[in-house]
Amino acid sequence: MASTPADVKELPSAYEFVLDMPGLKSGDIKVQIEDENLLVITGERRRDVEKDKEDGMYLKIERRMGKFMRKFTLPDTANLEAIFAVCRDGILTVTVKKLPPPDQKKPKMIEVKIA
Amino acid sequence: MASTPADVKELPSAYEFVLDMPGLKSGDIKVQIEDENLLVITGERRRDVEKDKEDGMYLKIERRMGKFMRKFTLPDTANLEAIFAVCRDGILTVTVKKLPPPDQKKPKMIEVKIA
Repeated sequence: MASTPADVKELPSAYEFVLDMPGLKSGDIKVQIEDENLLVITGERRRDVEKDKEDGMYLKIERRMGKFMRKFTLPDTANLEAIFAVCRDGILTVTVKKLPPPDQKKPKMIEVKIA
Repeated sequence: MASTPADVKELPSAYEFVLDMPGLKSGDIKVQIEDENLLVITGERRRDVEKDKEDGMYLKIERRMGKFMRKFTLPDTANLEAIFAVCRDGILTVTVKKLPPPDQKKPKMIEVKIA
């Protein structure tokens, strides 16, 4: 299964996964969480069969077609309930929000009594 | 200058050049004819500077940015006055119509007179 280039960025409140997916539409792409913290992105790129029927003949074929997959292990701070995916101009952006930081334990003040 | 994969197809009435251009919009791409029959396609891919200002930090960078160019020599049958370019879902399609075939010279009939 083929791959596709990706950038991964950490923002203050989220992780962002940006993948090149020229020609793919939202319906062609699947974004899933497996094994609790594995972000799995799969898709399939097909040639336009209808157009190919128009008696066309390829003089050159460089663009790769077929299935592809990318996997990313999410950190513990990822909020698996807040994942959003948008595909635009052939680029998929998956945003995984971070969990709010745990309440910082305030130092406990102990009153010093005068003996 | 970088390259980008292309398919070239010959249809009955046109040549079709299909290039992967994820993330590029029509305004980022230039399609020109040089030296009478050279189809030159140039573009530039940039990271989203505004988004990068959001205090983000790249954990992984695989997607290539920068300028790219592709050149194709057009055959004599290409109609340089009928070239159309469309960019959609990160794919550029340039269609170059073919010139109509030259009129076939009809055999000239010579009447055979009876001497």
